[in-house]
Amino acid sequence: MLPKVPGFRFSAVPAGIRKDGRVDVALAVADRPVAVAGVFTQNVVRAAPVNVAANRVLSGKAQAVLVNSGCANACTGEAGLVSVLESTASVARALKIAPELVVPASTGVIGELLSASAIAQHAEQLVARLSDAHSGDFATAIMTTDRWEKTASSLLEVNGTEVRVVGIGKGAGMIHPDLGPPQATLLAFLFTDVVVDPGDLQRALTLAVDDSFNTCSVDGDTSTNDTVLALASGASGVRLETSALSRALGEVCDALARSMVRDGEGTRHTVELMVRGLSTHQDARRIAQTVATSLLVKTALFGQDANWGRILAAAGRAGVRFDPNRAAIRVGSVEIVRGGVTLGKGREQEANVRMREPAFTIELELGDGSGSARYLMSDLGHDYVTLNAAYRS
Amino acid sequence: MLPKVPGFRFSAVPAGIRKDGRVDVALAVADRPVAVAGVFTQNVVRAAPVNVAANRVLSGKAQAVLVNSGCANACTGEAGLVSVLESTASVARALKIAPELVVPASTGVIGELLSASAIAQHAEQLVARLSDAHSGDFATAIMTTDRWEKTASSLLEVNGTEVRVVGIGKGAGMIHPDLGPPQATLLAFLFTDVVVDPGDLQRALTLAVDDSFNTCSVDGDTSTNDTVLALASGASGVRLETSALSRALGEVCDALARSMVRDGEGTRHTVELMVRGLSTHQDARRIAQTVATSLLVKTALFGQDANWGRILAAAGRAGVRFDPNRAAIRVGSVEIVRGGVTLGKGREQEANVRMREPAFTIELELGDGSGSARYLMSDLGHDYVTLNAAYRS
Repeated sequence: MLPKVPGFRFSAVPAGIRKDGRVDVALAVADRPVAVAGVFTQNVVRAAPVNVAANRVLSGKAQAVLVNSGCANACTGEAGLVSVLESTASVARALKIAPELVVPASTGVIGELLSASAIAQHAEQLVARLSDAHSGDFATAIMTTDRWEKTASSLLEVNGTEVRVVGIGKGAGMIHPDLGPPQATLLAFLFTDVVVDPGDLQRALTLAVDDSFNTCSVDGDTSTNDTVLALASGASGVRLETSALSRALGEVCDALARSMVRDGEGTRHTVELMVRGLSTHQDARRIAQTVATSLLVKTALFGQDANWGRILAAAGRAGVRFDPNRAAIRVGSVEIVRGGVTLGKGREQEANVRMREPAFTIELELGDGSGSARYLMSDLGHDYVTLNAAYRS
Repeated sequence: MLPKVPGFRFSAVPAGIRKDGRVDVALAVADRPVAVAGVFTQNVVRAAPVNVAANRVLSGKAQAVLVNSGCANACTGEAGLVSVLESTASVARALKIAPELVVPASTGVIGELLSASAIAQHAEQLVARLSDAHSGDFATAIMTTDRWEKTASSLLEVNGTEVRVVGIGKGAGMIHPDLGPPQATLLAFLFTDVVVDPGDLQRALTLAVDDSFNTCSVDGDTSTNDTVLALASGASGVRLETSALSRALGEVCDALARSMVRDGEGTRHTVELMVRGLSTHQDARRIAQTVATSLLVKTALFGQDANWGRILAAAGRAGVRFDPNRAAIRVGSVEIVRGGVTLGKGREQEANVRMREPAFTIELELGDGSGSARYLMSDLGHDYVTLNAAYRS
């Protein structure tokens, strides 16, 4: 059970947007306008709800978050935009607040238009069901190919008062977020009762996202709809330093990102990849991202095969100079490569055994520089192909 | 049957490098030292034979090409280098030529050391089998996961004299070449009887490769061993302009690249992707490459689903600005998107029918600029996963 966050209520209803009749529209509402911050996909092709949300977040104030699954409302032109404006307006009317205080987000198939009337018809019901105990319904309603709900929370005690951050996310495919300030089909919503100004909330969120969602990948494809929002009700009366808030948000984002990669479409193995020894963090991150998205590495992980040559070959095409003769590779605690060459079949077989685990680490050392980076990645197997060859049918 | 190329002889033997006992060492020999040019993988992790070949090609002269399958001799350190030097030396001795005139290439599993003694033991046999009729044996010996031999030829008549270019290649996986002058596991060897200086041959080859191998992708992974070599015997006595030679080489490279993508691991569909309307060729190429390597696009192709939203979403993450509201997409001759939105389910279903064909085109128009690019890509299905999850076992 997710802890309650003072100042926020949640609800969800089935509005017929999904074909399977499950709950598909979710609403989160603050008791009054609260500080909001958001990061959005940097894909050039942005869904209509992302454009509206990015614009509304600029004011630093919001009171509601309206999310639907089953339809991304992306690549829907002018009609898509009208649909977002109409659906947020109908929920605003039911809440008796200004429409600009409602921040929208959508996830589902690209190219299909969101039915504003489906949402208008269920607006009163959505509002009627609002409860501080319904955050679980919100989490269920925003799922698409997800096998489980993604929630996380962080509790801090500050001078004897408890403050909390609760996160609700979704995402299993088209996961390779590239989130930037004022611009995920990763969706994540963070609710906290700390006191914070919108500017500080935005800075804290941007830092938190960069070290979590922005360094995870399921399939290398960046969505048109990725959205992370943070709302702070201030109900605890406790003010946090931006760095402390960023750590709290980051902890929740990291837990959600891990859950997404673990639930990655067709995924059996989650790997935490550490790349070390480069001259800069950026160089290390570029290599980590290239290895994390390599099809040959991902299929080797699926095959539980310590095929380190594919790891090195992927690192080598990242566009970063390094000396392959200094490469070392460890799977868990088993070193399989040192000085750029194999330490033998015995070690590789030992590594293969570690690779049967659902989660393990791979460390790639490429020199003695201080630049390092972490990336959360998944294997790629038959279920990914099955799911994505049939997703729209 | 490949046409003969005056001035060149070929042979192949089983030397026990492959575990299945098939022919695995191939040799091509010119009657005398001839003009040579080469382009090699730009992967930072380069196999020992690539380093030796790139160095030997610098002289502009070569007389033999020695190729093995079954072992990439990559990530094998100092021992790998010694193995290349010893194996080319043993073949040079059998041919009674200088070792520097023998250009090596290898393909197979990364991290395994090439057995120089296996090649030394078969050097005399390799030389004894040399014949101008054995180019087919050469083509068979260099195959790894290839399902068929890859050969192509071009014949030109210049002032009544026939000149020819014959190409022999291999490659089905780890195909996303990034070939640059003086640096594939794409291997391609071009033999011609035209008269050309090494510098002009290098210029012609670089141009030919950039529009063929460098714009094709099976899995987005760039090999440690990619090598394209061109040797010109001059036996026709005919000198070609560099541009005409480049076109002839390009025609052969294009045919080999198409054969490789068609034989891509697990591939059922080959798609020629055309991206148009950007301000520069480089922008168009960057988008084409991003779409061509998108897992979601590739699995939709496998599913024969005109899921154009995935195409646009991939284009949008390429790092190139364009207006999504001006996007048009055609599958074969069926337009499915105009003005950034769908032209309806009827069109999409019509496109799905086209997508059952083994080969078709997808055109992506993103504005009215003159920048365009072409990319040869494949779908991604279960057989790719099966093959690459088990490749080393």
